[in-house]
Amino acid sequence: MRVAVGRMSPSIGRVVTYHLGWVDADGRSVDDPGGKVVRPALAFASARGVGASAEAALPGAVAVELVHNFSLLHDDVMDRDTERRHRPTAWALMGVGEAILAGDALLAMAQEALIDPPSPERLRAAAALSMATAEMITGQAEDLAFERREDVGFDECIAMLEHKTAALLACACKMGAILGGGTDQQVDALGDFGHSLGLAFQAVDDILGIWGKPEVTGKQAWSDLRQHKKTLPMVAALETGGAAADALRRLLASDESSDDDIARAAELIESNGGKDRALAVAAQSLEVALAHLDRIDAQLGPRRELEEIAGFITARDF
Amino acid sequence: MRVAVGRMSPSIGRVVTYHLGWVDADGRSVDDPGGKVVRPALAFASARGVGASAEAALPGAVAVELVHNFSLLHDDVMDRDTERRHRPTAWALMGVGEAILAGDALLAMAQEALIDPPSPERLRAAAALSMATAEMITGQAEDLAFERREDVGFDECIAMLEHKTAALLACACKMGAILGGGTDQQVDALGDFGHSLGLAFQAVDDILGIWGKPEVTGKQAWSDLRQHKKTLPMVAALETGGAAADALRRLLASDESSDDDIARAAELIESNGGKDRALAVAAQSLEVALAHLDRIDAQLGPRRELEEIAGFITARDF
Repeated sequence: MRVAVGRMSPSIGRVVTYHLGWVDADGRSVDDPGGKVVRPALAFASARGVGASAEAALPGAVAVELVHNFSLLHDDVMDRDTERRHRPTAWALMGVGEAILAGDALLAMAQEALIDPPSPERLRAAAALSMATAEMITGQAEDLAFERREDVGFDECIAMLEHKTAALLACACKMGAILGGGTDQQVDALGDFGHSLGLAFQAVDDILGIWGKPEVTGKQAWSDLRQHKKTLPMVAALETGGAAADALRRLLASDESSDDDIARAAELIESNGGKDRALAVAAQSLEVALAHLDRIDAQLGPRRELEEIAGFITARDF
Repeated sequence: MRVAVGRMSPSIGRVVTYHLGWVDADGRSVDDPGGKVVRPALAFASARGVGASAEAALPGAVAVELVHNFSLLHDDVMDRDTERRHRPTAWALMGVGEAILAGDALLAMAQEALIDPPSPERLRAAAALSMATAEMITGQAEDLAFERREDVGFDECIAMLEHKTAALLACACKMGAILGGGTDQQVDALGDFGHSLGLAFQAVDDILGIWGKPEVTGKQAWSDLRQHKKTLPMVAALETGGAAADALRRLLASDESSDDDIARAAELIESNGGKDRALAVAAQSLEVALAHLDRIDAQLGPRRELEEIAGFITARDF
């Protein structure tokens, strides 16, 4: 990552290193940048899952993390989110244009990190990453379009989350398997594992977006509700109907919502079963993900690693 | 292009087809989308220049035009430009988030168009495109940073334009030569041709950005001056110094400029030699570009085509 980012021009590197948490707002180095690096962890563990060393996955791990951070930078601009990881977002601190360009640079750099120098495996990984990136962008466009619609169904919400999040987690696993020299069956199985895990991960994230504590999530409380986002719990609660759904619709229709309104919306979603349904998606998807690991014939150690990452990223504090 | 764009999701395709001029604001097809397609023309002519058919360059021509349009979509957001090609810009009509995502989708699609299906030539072209895209983004970041600086010199302005514009035109030519099976010497020579031509092209564009007629440029009159952009004529005029430069600096320092102020700035730039110096850059760079064509050993017909494109894109009505 540091090599790739180090190749960027200073005016872009300044924004990227701040966004990544490597430096603070004054450009001073940060000792422990933190960050969950879920996608690189999956790429490394997937390479180990097909019997290779973790290092084999390195170009894929770097590329997928660059793509992920490209999407965070642009998402924050689009959602007008002012906080991420307990700090001001890059656009809020450094400007909208600067954040857009930094995201663009990360996306361009991701492909470069993969295909230079080229090998058949790297090129196959690059093609997988291009397609997953396109899917992710489609999911973000659906997410954005949903904010303006009142009739979003549960199934299309799931499909949106599969595009927005599951595709890139699936790709992280696939790239690890490809770069580790896995068989087609192993690549497919790890892709399926990553896909279901991605859905579970996003379902948990949607729950955190409403009920997560700001000190844990690093975002404003109820930020998804303030933006009228059609997250999984919200869509599930609306689809259940009844008086709670009607009240929720009225709250959504008002342009200015007080903190009391927002707290009331969170209660209505919970009482109408939205939280439970999202929790069920998370639990079921995690189970499906773990079942796919039977298909890769991994050794016990690497399999445990994959299971541990899966458990770690879907069990968050809320 | 239509195949690549047709693969996008409807919510993104809507924005992209509008931006490309294929449909109007209501989504109705436009018979003659227009557009100069300078970069594809260079890719095709470069393939012919190394003795191949124009069609050999097709994946490169599509990819470079996708990257170019990615940058236009994001530039319009960053510059808050409300008009392009005599129509509202995509963000002004459809929203900032939508335009950012549409640009992202074009960039992701560009790589996919090149590397799928893969071949050694396509992969070499993809690596060249990744690097040129990164350079272009660097140039845009420099351009943005220059808006806030008062001490931008002529030479660093030229370097910025080489990044922002020349790199992608050079890449269009290189990709045409690579996909056409040209020798390393031909690829280098056509890259150098495209680079110098790109600088000439941008110098002309900077002149048009101040003195171009809105009915020709499709943009607001004096749009570059309104945004305090450090274009080539402006930087040259500032560097010349004297009373005119001082007056120009005072105009730049004021936040609100009237049309009279802007007209006065255009006069000051011209009287201080800014327009002439930009015209000289355009003329000299075009000459250098054409000289590089001696190195490719092209047949007469293809060479004439390259010369004609070069003349066409640097001779614009102002």
